Amino acid sequence: NINRGDVGGTTIFSVMSGLAVQHNALNLSQGFPDFDGPAPLLERVQYYLTHGFNQYPPMTGVDSLRYAVRDKVADLYGAQVDGDTEVTISAGATEALFCAIAAVVRAGDEVIVFDPAYDSYAPVVALQGGKTIHIPLSAPDFKIDWNQVAAKLSDRTRLIIVNTPHNPTGAVCGEADIAALRTLAEHHDFYILADEVYEHIVFDGQAHLSMCRYPDLYERSFVVSSFGKTYHVTGWKVGYCVAPPDLSAEFRRIHQFVNFTVNTPVQLGLADFLHAHPEHHLQLPDFYQRKRDYFLTQLQGSKFTWQASAGTYFQLIDYGALSAELDVDLAKSWTEQLKLASIPISVFYQDQNCAPKSLLRFCFAKDTETCWHDCAANLTVF
Amino acid sequence: NINRGDVGGTTIFSVMSGLAVQHNALNLSQGFPDFDGPAPLLERVQYYLTHGFNQYPPMTGVDSLRYAVRDKVADLYGAQVDGDTEVTISAGATEALFCAIAAVVRAGDEVIVFDPAYDSYAPVVALQGGKTIHIPLSAPDFKIDWNQVAAKLSDRTRLIIVNTPHNPTGAVCGEADIAALRTLAEHHDFYILADEVYEHIVFDGQAHLSMCRYPDLYERSFVVSSFGKTYHVTGWKVGYCVAPPDLSAEFRRIHQFVNFTVNTPVQLGLADFLHAHPEHHLQLPDFYQRKRDYFLTQLQGSKFTWQASAGTYFQLIDYGALSAELDVDLAKSWTEQLKLASIPISVFYQDQNCAPKSLLRFCFAKDTETCWHDCAANLTVF
Ligand SMILES: CSCCC(=O)C(=O)O
Ligand SMILES: CSCCC(=O)C(=O)O
Repeated sequence: NINRGDVGGTTIFSVMSGLAVQHNALNLSQGFPDFDGPAPLLERVQYYLTHGFNQYPPMTGVDSLRYAVRDKVADLYGAQVDGDTEVTISAGATEALFCAIAAVVRAGDEVIVFDPAYDSYAPVVALQGGKTIHIPLSAPDFKIDWNQVAAKLSDRTRLIIVNTPHNPTGAVCGEADIAALRTLAEHHDFYILADEVYEHIVFDGQAHLSMCRYPDLYERSFVVSSFGKTYHVTGWKVGYCVAPPDLSAEFRRIHQFVNFTVNTPVQLGLADFLHAHPEHHLQLPDFYQRKRDYFLTQLQGSKFTWQASAGTYFQLIDYGALSAELDVDLAKSWTEQLKLASIPISVFYQDQNCAPKSLLRFCFAKDTETCWHDCAANLTVF
Repeated sequence: NINRGDVGGTTIFSVMSGLAVQHNALNLSQGFPDFDGPAPLLERVQYYLTHGFNQYPPMTGVDSLRYAVRDKVADLYGAQVDGDTEVTISAGATEALFCAIAAVVRAGDEVIVFDPAYDSYAPVVALQGGKTIHIPLSAPDFKIDWNQVAAKLSDRTRLIIVNTPHNPTGAVCGEADIAALRTLAEHHDFYILADEVYEHIVFDGQAHLSMCRYPDLYERSFVVSSFGKTYHVTGWKVGYCVAPPDLSAEFRRIHQFVNFTVNTPVQLGLADFLHAHPEHHLQLPDFYQRKRDYFLTQLQGSKFTWQASAGTYFQLIDYGALSAELDVDLAKSWTEQLKLASIPISVFYQDQNCAPKSLLRFCFAKDTETCWHDCAANLTVF
């Protein structure tokens, strides 16, 4: 009989979204908007779908979409990447993370992961026969402790996974983080997987520090992003990886046998939209910051504590001493009783001794503000 | 520096389709139709795309599409599979093949593959640290030599990959193949990966022998198919895997971290179409057999030899003594000079000593019959 327990069970996102449906709860768990993608984007995809563009695209993605990514990376991050050899379109960021890890990690290699960590990293490393070295981030600010990283680096360290803006905590890396990473990179031969799927959602005037900005770090990086997050269409499953030509070549060797390629009309429609509306993503910080602030306003007067999210569309709240229940249990009972689904944070820590036990993540990418208001009213009874 | 040469280079499909574009040649290489999907199918996808169905679907696929697959398998193959626990929607058959192999193959395991073999099998097995054992099929009929299989089975044999209808040869398995496989299965503990992406394209009144038909074999099988092949929309990248609950659970453990899930409007649209038009695939044998026959008619009077394809939308032709050029070179020079792209067969053999060197595969899933006619005229000069 097959037992691959090392690869983990069902993701917490499926569990909580399933419970939300079952109990007819407001689903602030899994990260997706309850509003739609921009109408002109839907229109462009519809155009290609209904005008005969339904056969295989090139393995690396359609030219126009790869070039649109190239242009965006140049405009935003001042980086000159080659659209043919450094950009690959993937079946969502999840597939890109998979391919990047599979491209470089082999049996016995070590991968540094910061907890709480997105739940695909460790299973994918394990699938390659690699070993994750977990470094906990601590509440309330969830900053990376680079001294700990230095202490955990070894000659088996193959990859460091840096996720900024950070899911689930909403923390973002600053210049000090880049400087610390650079110092380590000068003396160690690791690759960097930069999970930047929330690159366009950073608040309070801060800049997103994409790994693309730093040529010395970029040369060893896979930079992954997601059109689904940026354009409010998580169900389309289309993302990309930007990496130097040698790393992109390795990435593509995996990608071509994992997925081969990605939905044609969706790629072509996205490319048109990116060319016609390069400003769309510039509106996202304001757009989501207003939602974050609205959410936090609802919590005023409650006994919860929080640090305002610095990026992503997630907000953590700490129920601290208000309840002795573990976050996993509380998230489930709130789904049932308060009709409000969230994501418990402890599940994203490998070492439960390091895990905070009273933090819940809420997705505020929602239009249903009235609905929230009711929930918030329920929450304030605590 | 990274060198993962064991995972292979760029697929022959990308190479030949790229050359076809470059030389403005008729592309009969990569397997895709030059006609569109059914209009009512496009309409349903368009409906969901433009009516707010653009967020994450469930990890295993939307209920309606899984249930449609369940119903089809019941109708066609008399098999009762459970739509919740035995059907998983994948990002094309390629991803399903990947997940099935990754679900069961571990370092040191052996996998039996019949050459010529679809070019993703061996690299994916290698990525898992497994070893492919290649058994050549021989022209002109490309039947499996089960005595050779028996001789190559060992206690390390973890998986046998059976592809019927067979790409690239167009051969199909018969009841004698099933009986031989069953005899081996009675004494050996291997899994079966049944690549049945051309399940609906079988000619001359033969029946497709899906592994779903045989409960004793199905219980150890992953059965993979492709909506892209069946509905003329290869660019949508949506397929599925049917497997017993325990194997489906393992499959999903991989799938959730490789892709997580598959385009929502495409899934919902396919589900509606399958419910409304369950007869679509029943027309495919006739539809494609006519195209096969037209193609073969064009070759009448040439000096090529062939055995009519028994399934798939591919036809092999043998140029035998007409040219001393290797198939790989001839395929390239024909693309350049005759403006006709095909796929050389020898690249699908691991052992070049066993590989036929004068076979080319042509995709006849084309409407452009005039165009073919010109090409065929060129071909007959040989
Ligand atoms: C792939 S499902 C998870 C969605 C997501 O990114 C999140 O909720 O954190
Ligand atoms: C995934 S590209 C290959 C398409 C195909 O199945 C073939 O041409 O054999």
